[in-house]
Amino acid sequence: MNNLLKRTTESITSLPGIGHKSAVRIAYHLLKRRGDEFQSFIQSLIDFRENTEFCPICGSLKDKGIPCEFCDNPARDKTRICVVEQPTDVYVIENTRDYHGLYHVLMGVLSPLEGVGPEDIRIRELMERVEKSDHLEEIIIATNPDIEGNATAHYLHEVFRDRATVTRIASGLGIGSQLDYADTGVVSQAFRSRISMG
Amino acid sequence: MNNLLKRTTESITSLPGIGHKSAVRIAYHLLKRRGDEFQSFIQSLIDFRENTEFCPICGSLKDKGIPCEFCDNPARDKTRICVVEQPTDVYVIENTRDYHGLYHVLMGVLSPLEGVGPEDIRIRELMERVEKSDHLEEIIIATNPDIEGNATAHYLHEVFRDRATVTRIASGLGIGSQLDYADTGVVSQAFRSRISMG
Repeated sequence: MNNLLKRTTESITSLPGIGHKSAVRIAYHLLKRRGDEFQSFIQSLIDFRENTEFCPICGSLKDKGIPCEFCDNPARDKTRICVVEQPTDVYVIENTRDYHGLYHVLMGVLSPLEGVGPEDIRIRELMERVEKSDHLEEIIIATNPDIEGNATAHYLHEVFRDRATVTRIASGLGIGSQLDYADTGVVSQAFRSRISMG
Repeated sequence: MNNLLKRTTESITSLPGIGHKSAVRIAYHLLKRRGDEFQSFIQSLIDFRENTEFCPICGSLKDKGIPCEFCDNPARDKTRICVVEQPTDVYVIENTRDYHGLYHVLMGVLSPLEGVGPEDIRIRELMERVEKSDHLEEIIIATNPDIEGNATAHYLHEVFRDRATVTRIASGLGIGSQLDYADTGVVSQAFRSRISMG
């Protein structure tokens, strides 16, 4: 493999979820593009990096100089805050079109093993928002259903249980999945978390 | 979703094999990178495009100003030419470490439906190479096992059968796959292409 292709392929595999084969295909695709299309691709990446910032209130991504589409939007339901780990989690929930409340991005998750405590993620900011809010009724926790996401959810429940209704999005067997394809750990967890049918 | 993220995500989904969700993750990953790392990522893409070219003989990718790692390499076996559709197919075969001969990239495949005839891909160049070669014994056809790849293989066989041994890499059920997971068309084709076991 020629040196430049090797170097570019390595660069591209450093992106999340891209293996060696996909990287070679992507590199070749970029080589075949028209010059102006390639320029505009590169420019879109540079513009994005230079002109995107985090909303100082909710932590979601916003264009510099533009109000936050959630915090500064009078149409959003101010009685609910949904707490997520990463800014990209916001779009996963927005895509459902079921939720119209506010968000709070923690920018991480509690992890005693990696030395991440409550002061290292945006929990203080959430406490301040909750304290100041006159309308808040529900805090919906949407951290991932893994060890660290669970620990974070329990911590937040303890902190906010006296101030608002604290809920967590459902987890268990993947909806639409099949029992015999599921990981044993997942089945075991789903079994222990069984709920009464009525 | 903010405008810049939307635009960047669209740019990234234009790459082969990248869906919307992966594109959002990649965009966010690029945002979190250190500035110098981001710069070197962008620079590697630009350098690759500016300084990569196709070998005028075999059509594989090479760094500008550097001899072709196949055609100009005395260690390669000059008695065999492996014919592939795309430059990236060369690396798929190189990765097996089983083949040490030359390559010929067609830069496409015969497709009557899309109006691609023998004069539109690098078949004339292959004829010239074959004519000039004193050592050639085998032409190994490694076009894809689909309608167009098959048509191209048959065409090349007709053209070169009197000049060299023409072989084609094996296809059928995916090696290591399971019959009950295979597509009906694949099974049907594999059944019709059955070979005697001895």
